[in-house]
Amino acid sequence: MKTKIVCVLILITLSSTTFAKAKPEDLIKYRQSAMMFMRWNVGTIKKQVVKKPQSYNQQQVSDAANAIAAVANTNLHALFAPGTESGKGWKTTIAKPELFNNNDDVKQHLSVLRIEANKLAKIANSGDINLIKPQFENLFQACRGCHKKYRAKP
Amino acid sequence: MKTKIVCVLILITLSSTTFAKAKPEDLIKYRQSAMMFMRWNVGTIKKQVVKKPQSYNQQQVSDAANAIAAVANTNLHALFAPGTESGKGWKTTIAKPELFNNNDDVKQHLSVLRIEANKLAKIANSGDINLIKPQFENLFQACRGCHKKYRAKP
Repeated sequence: MKTKIVCVLILITLSSTTFAKAKPEDLIKYRQSAMMFMRWNVGTIKKQVVKKPQSYNQQQVSDAANAIAAVANTNLHALFAPGTESGKGWKTTIAKPELFNNNDDVKQHLSVLRIEANKLAKIANSGDINLIKPQFENLFQACRGCHKKYRAKP
Repeated sequence: MKTKIVCVLILITLSSTTFAKAKPEDLIKYRQSAMMFMRWNVGTIKKQVVKKPQSYNQQQVSDAANAIAAVANTNLHALFAPGTESGKGWKTTIAKPELFNNNDDVKQHLSVLRIEANKLAKIANSGDINLIKPQFENLFQACRGCHKKYRAKP
């Protein structure tokens, strides 16, 4: 009987440890990584579609657009959970405090990001640079709209 | 004539600045971000498929698997360019020196990652947890195979 109770207690301790919520510093690190990884891919498209179209490589632009869409489709909002308003991931967060008091608006911004990113991925897969360019601008505006409101100057 | 020469010189300077190769510290930051973003998604699948299947959420697991595949489909090898053997991105790189002397083998590892990640995404979209679990293990082995050879202890 005693052994059974001890086993149950060990199991409870183990499971609460294993499935403990992610640490705030990890969540901040994940969101900073998601943003930085998107930035790399945005940079690829910007270079090959806007700045230097003679370097356009359909496969690379398509892969980059798909990557941005896949990031946008994950639950990014979960990375801005309560407890992550301040603190350090890779670096001290530059998310503004108001981000955490405007959940509905933030979700709306993330939804716009998702829509524009998925449109861009679809268009990029078609390979028509003249269609990619304006949709890339729409994606860029979606990023900018949220950053202007909720991100302090980097 | 003088004005023309000056203009041409300005244009050359501008274009070589705008299209300068990415700085090594940026490339290291991008690759560390790609890995950390994959880790978040691997963690989501591990929790919901392996550790706590009662928490399984098809959409979340599918989104996570698609994100890993999309990252794997980008040109990750470009983030290990010459000049990035040492130095600091978000933190000092832990890529081993031998990574940079074994390009063909590294590309082979990245190709295995791509294959296993895309298989996982396809299976995850089907929603059958009994098929997801063994394929997730295959993906995990693909990560592990490369890390064991080319990543120093974190």
